[in-house]
Formats: sequence, structure tokens, C-alpha cells
Amino acid sequence: MGYTEKDWLAINTIRTLAVDATFNANSGHPGAPMGMAPVAHVLFNKFMKFNPTNPKWLNRDRFVLSNGHGCMLQYALLHLFGYGVSIDDLKKFRKVDSITPGHPESHDTPGIEVSTGPLGQGISNAVGIAIAQAHTAAVFNKDGFPLINHHTYAFLGDGCLMEGISGEACSLAGHLQLGNLIAVWDDNHITIDGDTNCAFTEDVAKRYEAYGWHVLKVERGDDDLDAIEAALKAAQEVTDKPTLICLKTTIGFGSLQQGTHGVHGSPLKADDIKQLKKKFGFNPEQSFVVPQEVYEAYHLHAADGVAAEEEWNELFAKYAKTYKAEHADLVRRLKGELPEGWEKSLPTYTPADSAVASRKLSETVLTKIVDVLPELIGGSADLTGSNLTKWKSSVDFQPKANGLGDYSGRYIRYGVREHGMGAIMNGIAAYGTLIPFGGTFLNFVSYAAGAVRLSALSQQRLIWVATHDSIGLGEDGPTHQPIETLTHFRALPNCMVWRPADGNETSAAYYIAITSKHTPSIIALSRQNLPQLEGSQIDKSIKGGYVLHEVEKADITLVSTGSEVCICVDAAKELNEKHNIKARIVSIPCFEVFDAQTKEYRLSVLPDGIPSLSVEVMSTMGWERYTHEQFGLNRFGASGAYKDVYNKFEFTPAGISKRALATIDFWKDVPNIRSPLNRAFQQLI
Amino acid sequence: MGYTEKDWLAINTIRTLAVDATFNANSGHPGAPMGMAPVAHVLFNKFMKFNPTNPKWLNRDRFVLSNGHGCMLQYALLHLFGYGVSIDDLKKFRKVDSITPGHPESHDTPGIEVSTGPLGQGISNAVGIAIAQAHTAAVFNKDGFPLINHHTYAFLGDGCLMEGISGEACSLAGHLQLGNLIAVWDDNHITIDGDTNCAFTEDVAKRYEAYGWHVLKVERGDDDLDAIEAALKAAQEVTDKPTLICLKTTIGFGSLQQGTHGVHGSPLKADDIKQLKKKFGFNPEQSFVVPQEVYEAYHLHAADGVAAEEEWNELFAKYAKTYKAEHADLVRRLKGELPEGWEKSLPTYTPADSAVASRKLSETVLTKIVDVLPELIGGSADLTGSNLTKWKSSVDFQPKANGLGDYSGRYIRYGVREHGMGAIMNGIAAYGTLIPFGGTFLNFVSYAAGAVRLSALSQQRLIWVATHDSIGLGEDGPTHQPIETLTHFRALPNCMVWRPADGNETSAAYYIAITSKHTPSIIALSRQNLPQLEGSQIDKSIKGGYVLHEVEKADITLVSTGSEVCICVDAAKELNEKHNIKARIVSIPCFEVFDAQTKEYRLSVLPDGIPSLSVEVMSTMGWERYTHEQFGLNRFGASGAYKDVYNKFEFTPAGISKRALATIDFWKDVPNIRSPLNRAFQQLI
Repeated sequence: MGYTEKDWLAINTIRTLAVDATFNANSGHPGAPMGMAPVAHVLFNKFMKFNPTNPKWLNRDRFVLSNGHGCMLQYALLHLFGYGVSIDDLKKFRKVDSITPGHPESHDTPGIEVSTGPLGQGISNAVGIAIAQAHTAAVFNKDGFPLINHHTYAFLGDGCLMEGISGEACSLAGHLQLGNLIAVWDDNHITIDGDTNCAFTEDVAKRYEAYGWHVLKVERGDDDLDAIEAALKAAQEVTDKPTLICLKTTIGFGSLQQGTHGVHGSPLKADDIKQLKKKFGFNPEQSFVVPQEVYEAYHLHAADGVAAEEEWNELFAKYAKTYKAEHADLVRRLKGELPEGWEKSLPTYTPADSAVASRKLSETVLTKIVDVLPELIGGSADLTGSNLTKWKSSVDFQPKANGLGDYSGRYIRYGVREHGMGAIMNGIAAYGTLIPFGGTFLNFVSYAAGAVRLSALSQQRLIWVATHDSIGLGEDGPTHQPIETLTHFRALPNCMVWRPADGNETSAAYYIAITSKHTPSIIALSRQNLPQLEGSQIDKSIKGGYVLHEVEKADITLVSTGSEVCICVDAAKELNEKHNIKARIVSIPCFEVFDAQTKEYRLSVLPDGIPSLSVEVMSTMGWERYTHEQFGLNRFGASGAYKDVYNKFEFTPAGISKRALATIDFWKDVPNIRSPLNRAFQQLI
Repeated sequence: MGYTEKDWLAINTIRTLAVDATFNANSGHPGAPMGMAPVAHVLFNKFMKFNPTNPKWLNRDRFVLSNGHGCMLQYALLHLFGYGVSIDDLKKFRKVDSITPGHPESHDTPGIEVSTGPLGQGISNAVGIAIAQAHTAAVFNKDGFPLINHHTYAFLGDGCLMEGISGEACSLAGHLQLGNLIAVWDDNHITIDGDTNCAFTEDVAKRYEAYGWHVLKVERGDDDLDAIEAALKAAQEVTDKPTLICLKTTIGFGSLQQGTHGVHGSPLKADDIKQLKKKFGFNPEQSFVVPQEVYEAYHLHAADGVAAEEEWNELFAKYAKTYKAEHADLVRRLKGELPEGWEKSLPTYTPADSAVASRKLSETVLTKIVDVLPELIGGSADLTGSNLTKWKSSVDFQPKANGLGDYSGRYIRYGVREHGMGAIMNGIAAYGTLIPFGGTFLNFVSYAAGAVRLSALSQQRLIWVATHDSIGLGEDGPTHQPIETLTHFRALPNCMVWRPADGNETSAAYYIAITSKHTPSIIALSRQNLPQLEGSQIDKSIKGGYVLHEVEKADITLVSTGSEVCICVDAAKELNEKHNIKARIVSIPCFEVFDAQTKEYRLSVLPDGIPSLSVEVMSTMGWERYTHEQFGLNRFGASGAYKDVYNKFEFTPAGISKRALATIDFWKDVPNIRSPLNRAFQQLI
């Protein structure tokens, strides 16, 4: 209340900065920032607490721009409040090696919580952030110590609402009664194809009510700052439901083309900019202008944030006295450190231990480490009994009201929502106090490809427990049997794809996944039982690839992963007994990690002078990088009992032996066989 | 109305068949078939028209089992009505090489319209089928000739409703007012994780009303056949909205474990089966029993279907007389033939033609062929102006009521719904009269990975117009720049990934995409301009790979695709001028098609005796299959003007030359260099 010309000056400063930066870049999206400047001004100044000098302060309010193409709005705000984003950075908007890329990237820019742009991801990340807050608050808040009581705000556009992923995440947010989450829909009736009436005529408010959200409407989002403030206040007052504020705005407000898709994704024309600046009382000949009083007002609010953190630090110091263990735990988590010696809880195995499915081995790992790693939080996309992601003592993360658990619970029932789960995990990981994991069948990690990509790009530590990892799942058949999936995610930069062969390798996969602070992991796990291998060790496996079975003067190296390694062991026996052929065996549970070892080490695993054959029961694509010949499955699988399916496709000792003999024969005349690891030049990184 | 014991005998026959088949397979999902047998019985006998002796009859009612895990329901029905599914086939349920796999596959089993199982796909396919029907009816129906007036029915479960893809497709179905679509939600309150109250408490009916659907509820789906019939009747009566019938059922009805997730995904125990058969009046010692009177009743209805088709055939014969051209067109389409000479409309180019972005070249192709190929129907996921998928004379596929087009229109406004679009295209393709295409950025085809996989598995002909295909899109930055995408889809069996380098290659891509009746295509297209290349021809390009530029006694082969081919041409010049190095140039616009050529041909393109270097500005994974060395981008891209980004990563003549020299140097001491095309053994297909 009590808004004055000064507020409008600030709002129009944001608008002109967005206009100037997109014009200067000759690229970008001015429309959304111009339409959302009023709500951003009110939200950031009247509601949000944050400290620009410490963008990582735990109890800051979180902000997510789900319509990430409007990022000049966010960059302008970060600049005005005094984050590490200068006017020069705004001038480098959308230029190579700037911290102001075309869509917000959290690892690049101070004050950006999550990387957005791909539509629907940001609002789903926000649901994850809200979950992380609710959980962290439930664990650490104590009477008189409301350490964590901030809000999570998200802006989103029509595109985000049309994407299925947002429906998944928002349905879950409603179920979970995440009252700390407040989303603002930029209801401007415009998408790239024009008026939303061409494809998007559903009743959004009613849909969100159906999800269990508190829904509010603001009719005049362009000029009614009081109504915006009132709506945000009303949103805060409802604490058992997330809120959606449907805010009617005019895209590109102030432009001659306002209200059309002409202002969505292209800079304004020079003349248009001039009239707009005149209209807003700015000098039409100047660019990137910030009136001093706008800086002052924004810096004043920033100073409030600095003070708020100082006050919080005092509270936290007091907390340390009464709640010593909790304090130490939280401090450790915020530093990004793991509890000392946690890794001793990882199970180890010897060949005397019984054959177990690697999904079951994963369950054992989780069961053994959940107590020493209180930051682990996870669940399954409605495949709990198949993924084996739930440990016995676990409590469901649920609103107390439904009687099924509470927010201190660490087991999340995601429902059949893989893509939503992926984006929610990104939000949880970004929060800073937790390490999320999520289960589904490997084949359905593909449903979440958009989110997995952003995990990798934005360097989030999280774990996909991806069971039923091959045709070995058997009867469910080709619709469920991954063929291309490992190749897909191996080709994704900064993504670890693990396919452990036994218990020690499964422990190694979790060890690296948990200690890699900036990389997501997908752990592919079998439905069928696997023996504990002679020669496997955690220490070796954490190198991503190693010699499982060495033989002097070997004729061939068999290279494999996961459930096929033990078949290679049997094939090596058969080759020796029936054909007098000596086979070395190499296991490469993770390409990404193996690639990071020294060349010397890698060549000791896959040496020159000997032909190699890879064996993996799915696409061979990518294996050519490691082996001379490849045995795999470049077609869809089949529905049947797992052994019948393996037999059909010859993934048997005999089938492997046949191909090993062919490989040896094919390479016998080649002098000085070179390991495929030798390359003419280094790849760019 | 007037249901008797005979109806219940039939319903219980379906239930016991599902119980017996899953028990016999020791695997499968009895619960859904047991719960949905009543509605299936009523729907198939009282409402649906179909001819089991001709499962492809155009005006049959379509049925989609979106909860595909319940496929024993469908197999039982197909058997009872006399489709080509025998009792023996039911006994082979979930066994290798049967026509009754673990989830329904349309290319395997007569009477299965689309392949389902991955949740949310089927209902979205059904939306596509309903669109295809509405369009085909609008084009071919005439006064007195209601050739196409059937319905599309879908069953779906809680899982389908939780998946975002179904929200995307159903929101669009509501917008499009698809009154011919009737969906039945198996509201049994159970998912794999237990009661839906743990993750899925939204108000589904309200959500579907928000989408613009007509929503009905049936409270007693286990026993109230009259209510089921009344609801289906009411659904048919509303012709301007799709209908969702919320049908309360008991999962695993009749089992001792009914109403629990214990009956969802595992066979019943032997004792349970005995009590159930007794309860239903079946001999507990016998399996796979079908009472003769059930056969008789179902065959009677099948005979009605035969008669209905005969009547329809007469109508169609009459139609031929009045509407000769339309009749011929429809007959041709149903035969799966293309209009003679259509390919003459494909544009050809010479190097004198100007440089054009390949997305623009794609627009030219579409513009030239839409008139000769009336079966082409397509649109964009809200990127029309970027994908350039719309031709000038196009009319929107819209309900007449909204004033933006009509059902005869062939341009579909998909909204920002990539996954939904992919599944809708599968439905349209499955209908049999149309060839769908859909546009988005290449990077966002990944959002639709689940649907693309089913296109490939179920052999649907459709086209992804995937523009902005690399870091060449520039300023939008890493969130939008594909790195792993081509590798992902190249690793998917039966999926053609095209990346044309110029106009002739773009025409070739469309030519093969349209003539390949059983394979989907993704055509990756540039945002930036590309010159028309010397040496490119449609005839050569349709082989998937060819020599663009031959040189005698070459020192190296440069192998490339899309926008990098022209840079290789410049690099070859630089190599010649500055280093006296002779480079051949090979273009491989499509791996899948190149792989299908004879080995002799392939070796003429990538011969022995000469080292090769691939150049493609994304993941190198997969290129090792074709070339000795690879220049690519195994990291994320950067936001900036396209030339700056290409320079940053050295995708320039100089950057390529440097690596070509390194390649030549690295391979100079290897005698008898073998082309990577030589393999020790054949892959299984």
C-alpha cells in the first residue's frame, strides 16, 4: 500500500533495462519482463527477504523464474539489489562467456537458484525447493528457533502451465499441502503462436483448485500494485495449501506492440524503444539507465536483508548452545561436507555371498547409509516395491493432516510422475541441505529426460535408482525394456551412468554418486539375481572401470557391465575349456568416471596389442570408443521369462564365446593392435 | 438394460481368463482386467461396432487400453469375439515370440490399435485417433454418406492420470471439443504403492471439467451394468466435448485380496484362484475355460460387426459414384499408397541457389508437397514461427465453434505440449488415413522421448520437424542447445534421424520419411543459413550417406552432417591450400538409412586405407562406428551469437584443419588402415 511515483520509476527501470539489454544483444525476450515488472517490484521489495552479499543464506526467500526466457527481469533485479551482476554484465546479455546467458543458469550467476528456460521445469523445481524447506524446517526448527520459515516464490507463464511436467509437480504439491509455495501465473494470453485461444482454453484456476491449491485472481496486474500486494499477503496467510495467483498482465507493456506475440521473443525496434522511454519519463537517447533513487530504494531493501541475516546468525548461534548436534549437522550440510566415515557403512561382499538382484543390493546400501547420511531423502515414482527404494524405518514425507507421515519423513511418494520427480529432485538438490534420490524403471528415466538434462547442466547431485535395467526384466516386454537409454544418458555431459555388476560395484556406485557434489547419477540395476564376483572391489570399481580378471598372454579382453559381467566370466571359462582361448575380463560400470582416470591407468585396463569385445545387452552405440568389437542389442527386446529372452538374443556363454572367436579371428592379421583409447587429439572440455 | 446371468457369465469368463493366463505365465497384472471386465463387457457388446475378420475396417470403433498392463482384458476380449487370438495364444501370454506380450503391441496382435503400457501414452494416442477421425470425417463425409462416424474409447488408470503427458493431450482434446472421444477411468483407488491417498488426492473430475470435458460418475462399477450403460449412452449424446466416465471399481474383483495392490502386478495364488472360480460358478480344477454360450453371445455381436461392415461397404460403393475423386483418394490412403509422382514436387537445388536455413528449406518442402499429399497433417508445439511448419494456405484444425478453423483444417496448434504431441502423432498415424508431422526445437524432442520410443517400437510413420538443431541456435544458450539428442535417437531402433546439410538433402530426408511406412523420422534442421552444396543430390542423399566431394589419392576423409558439412568444404580448401593435404568429403545425413545400404556401397563411401575424421557439433558418441577420429562437443554449449559460439568451440575451417592434420599424423604409421565399417560379426536384427 502507499505506492508512489518512485515505485513506478523502479518498475519502469526494470522494463527499460530489459528493453535495452535485448536490443543490445539483438536477441531475447523483452515481453515477459515488461509485463511482470510490477509484480516483481512488489514481491521483491515488500515480501522477500534476501541478502545480496550472501546469496546462499539458508533462510532467504527463494525465487524461481519458471518462464526463464524472461530472465532479463531477473538479471535486472539482481543488479538493482546489488548482487554480483553489474551493468556491464547486463550489456553482455546473451554474449559468449557472460554471466547473463539467454536463460538463467544457477552455476553461472549469483542469485539464480535453479536453471530454467525449458518450460515447466522451474515451477517443478520450486515444488522441490518447497519440499526441501518443509523437511529441513521439520528437522531443525525448534520451539523459539524458527530457523527456516521463508517462502518459495515462482513466476510462470502459459507455456509452463501447458507442459505436463508442471501438472505432475503441482498435483503433488497440492497433495503435500505445501503452504510455503506461492506461484504467480503471468496470465497475458499470449504464446509464441499468438493468442492462447488457439490451443489453451482450459480453466487454469479450476484445474489448480482441483489439485488442492489456493487460487487467487488479480485482474489488473499492469497497474494495481495494491491488489498485487493484497494477493501476495492472502497467499502467505494460507499455510496448508500452495497458492496460485492468476495475474492478468499485458505482455510487452509500454511497447507499441504490447499485448501481441510480436514482443515475446524479439527485441523492440529502435523507434518503439524511444517512444516507450519517453512515455516512462526516460531519456530516449540513453540506454541502461538506472536512476540513483531506484538504486537507493533497492539497496535499502538489500540492507534489510543483510540485517535479517545478521539477526538470523545470532539466533543460529543461540541454537548452537541448546541444540548442539542439530547445529553441527546443519553447519556440516551447508558446507557441503559428508559425515566423517559415513562410507564405512557401505556393504562389501565376497564371492561366498549369495546371488542377489542389484536392485536388492541397492536397497541394502540405502538401508545401511540412511542413518549415517540424514541428508538423504528419496522415494519412487509409484514403484516402491519394484525399485526397493524404501527402508524399513522410513517415515513418509506427508502433511501431518493426512495421517500418513509428516514433513520430517524422508520417504517421498512421488506417484507415477517421473518427469515431475526429476525436476523436484533438482529443486531439492538446489536447496542445499539434502541429497535426493528417486526410483523408477530405467526405461522411464527417459520420461524425465528434460529434467535429467538440467540436473547435468546445473550440476545437481542427485541419484536415479533405475531398476529393471534391461531385457532381463523379462515378461513386461519391449515397451519396458531399455535399449537406447544408457547410450542416451552416457552421451549427456556431466551425467554419471552406473551399471554395477555385483554388490561391491553397487556400493562403489553409491560412493561416487554421493561424493560427487556437482554431478547427477543414474544407477542402472537389475531385476534378476547376480552373483558376487571374484575380483570385484569397491576400491577398483570407483575408478569407473577395472580389470576384474587378469590373464597373462590373453587372446582377448571381454568388456562388460552389470548383469552381463557374470555371463562373461562363464564365457571366459568356456573359451578356455573348449577353445583354449584366454580371456581377460574388464568391468566398466561407469564410462564418465573411467574417462576421468589417467590415460596410463585406462590403457592398463584396455591395453594395446589385444582385441577386445564389449558385451552389453542393449545398444552398442558408444562402446566403439572402448572396444574393437561390440556384442549388444540394436533392436527391441521381447516379452518372456528372462532366461528365455537372454537365450533368444544369445546372451549366453556360448553366444559370447562365438563372438569372441570371431573377434580374435578378425583381428589376428592386424599387427600392433591399438587400443581404441588412443586418440589423435583431445576433446574440448 | 436387461442384463442377465449370461452377462455375468461372460464377465466372469473374462476375469477367469485373466487369472488363468497370469497364473500360467507366472507373471502379469490380473487386477485391472478383473475390475474392468464389467465395463468392457457392456462397452464392447452394447456400444462398439467392429469386425473381427477385418480388424482394419475404417469405420470400426477404436479401443485403446491406456493402462496397458491390464492387457489380458484385451486379449480375452479379442479371443472371445473371434479375432486371430486363440486360447493357445492366451496360454502363451508373456512368453517369447507369442502374439500376447506383456503389454499390447499393435504390430504383433490383430485388433490392437496402438502399443500401450508406458503410462499416459494410450489415452494420448486416443486423442490422436479422435483427431484423425474428426479430420477424416470432415474431409470425406458427405450429405447422406456418414462414412466415418465411429467413436474412440479408452480405458485408463490412476497411473495414466498422474502422468503429465495425459494432461497435455487431454487439455488439447478439451480445447478441440473432440466429442467422439470417450474415456473410462478405472477409479479403483489403488496404485503400486498402495492406496492412491498416499500421492494422488486431486479432484480428477474437476480437473477434467477444467479441461472442458464432459464428466460422468458411476459409483458401482463392479455390479451396476445399467449405470455403466447409461453413462456410456450419455457420453455419446454429448458431441461437442470428450467425456470422462469416472468408474468406481474394485481391483482384482473376486480375489481374496481384492481392493489391494496385492492383485495389481502379480498372479493370484492357487488357493485364491480356486475360491474365485467356485464363487463365479467355474470348475476350480479347470483353466482357460470359455462356456459355449459366452462364445455364442460374443460371436453374435461379432456377426453384427461383419454385417455392419458389409452395409458400410455398400454405402462406400455408392459414394464412389457420386464422389469419385474422394473415393479414390480414400481407397489409396487405406492401401497405404502415395499419389503417383508426388515426389516430383520436392524442390531441388544447385550451388547457384542462395544460402538458406534448413528449417526454411523444410518449410519450402512442406509448402510444395502439402497439395499433392492431402494426408499430411501437422503443426507445432507452439513454435510455428520458429519451426516454420505452417504453409500459407493452411487452415487450422479447430472446432468450428471457436471460429479459428474447422476439422477439415490440417494445421494443428499443439500448444507447448511436446510429449502430448508425440503421442497424439502416434494415434493419428495409427488411424490409417494420415501422415502426421510436428515441430519443436530438437532439444525438446527429448521431452517426448517416451512417445518417440513407442513410435519406433510400434512402427508408426510420422515426422518430427526438429529445428534449432545445435549450438548454432546461438543466444538461447545451453538450456536449449542439444548435445546428446542425436545420439539418443540414433541409438533407438527403427528411428530415422536426419540432419540434412542443404536443400537437396532436406528434400531427400522428407522423401525417405514419407515413403518409409513403418518408421518414424526426426529431421534436425538448422536455425542458421546453409549454402547449397556442390555435389549434393537427392538421389545420393537418399542412401543416408554419400561422397559429396571425391579426390584421388586423398589423405583423409572428412565426414559430417548438417550445418558442419559446409564448414568441412571450407576446411578441405584450407587443407589443400595451406598444407597440401587432400581431403575427401562425405555427408551422412542419416545413420539408420546408410546402415541399410550394401557393405560394398558403404565401403565406397568410407573406404579402407585412409583415415577419417567426423565433424558434428555435438556428442561424438556413436561416430566411432563410422570414423577413426571424432571432432564434436562432449560438453554443454554457450549462449552467444552463433558465429561466436562456433568460434569458441573451434568449429571453423581452421579448427577442423588442425584436427585433420592430427588425424593424418596419428594414423600415418598404421599400415592397411581398416575402415571402421569392417566388423568381426553381424549384429542381431
